[in-house]
Amino acid sequence: MFEAASTPRLSPQKQRLRFWRRLLKLSRGVESQLRNRFRAEFGITLPRFDVMAALDRHKKGLKMSELSSVLKVSNGNVTGFVDRLVSDGCIIRAPVAGDRRAWQVQLTRKGRDEFTAMAAMHESWVGAILQELGPEEADEIIAVLDRLGRATGDAQ
Amino acid sequence: MFEAASTPRLSPQKQRLRFWRRLLKLSRGVESQLRNRFRAEFGITLPRFDVMAALDRHKKGLKMSELSSVLKVSNGNVTGFVDRLVSDGCIIRAPVAGDRRAWQVQLTRKGRDEFTAMAAMHESWVGAILQELGPEEADEIIAVLDRLGRATGDAQ
Repeated sequence: MFEAASTPRLSPQKQRLRFWRRLLKLSRGVESQLRNRFRAEFGITLPRFDVMAALDRHKKGLKMSELSSVLKVSNGNVTGFVDRLVSDGCIIRAPVAGDRRAWQVQLTRKGRDEFTAMAAMHESWVGAILQELGPEEADEIIAVLDRLGRATGDAQ
Repeated sequence: MFEAASTPRLSPQKQRLRFWRRLLKLSRGVESQLRNRFRAEFGITLPRFDVMAALDRHKKGLKMSELSSVLKVSNGNVTGFVDRLVSDGCIIRAPVAGDRRAWQVQLTRKGRDEFTAMAAMHESWVGAILQELGPEEADEIIAVLDRLGRATGDAQ
């Protein structure tokens, strides 16, 4: 388990860079597999699923700026996916109570049903892709990732 | 450290999904911070840095298809960054030995010098963003990430 035990210890900074490269590599690799499966199975893009997932977690709806912030992407990137989801009847735009100029988006019933089906597939794909992950190490790593996330302010 | 010790154990599949969400959240959060710093400090985008980093790791050059594969993005996405780097004198296109119709890209001296300066800043930013990460837990997690990466075939 301790890969570096027999090799000289890197400086803390180099080691954090190494950690970051591995994290990013795995994250991109898994995303890439999920992207291919979403395309093959549902003919949709991963960002479309991400938008629907964010709206499923925020049942009351999100302003466009909140949606961008939750997804950590720029407003411009989100607009196209939202427009498409609106024209497909999966989400609706609704006025924000108390702010006449603001609009927010929400999943429709159709959108929720579509999302539920896709989320079940997504969960089983992730389970298969990460099947080597044991429960104890998952617990440990999740705790570290959470701590690192808080320290970085889960920030922009 | 064992966050889930006092809560009921999730199914392995749900737990892998939870792990994946946390990994993706941290990865996007760190990327978002790096993106902002690259923009503020060097006026460049993160993908531009990623292209230069890939070419720095592959001194002999990469074909466009290889570059896309290394970066795990589509060919189309890479082309614009490569064009810009060529016109800035940071990379050159060169014919591939033994394949008349193929071209590959390489860093120029100017590109290497620019990359070296940016890579030093990048390393110190990552070190600061992840400063909560201890050396032992880094070793442990890197070993798990590598194992998961191999199991997923580091794949497209």
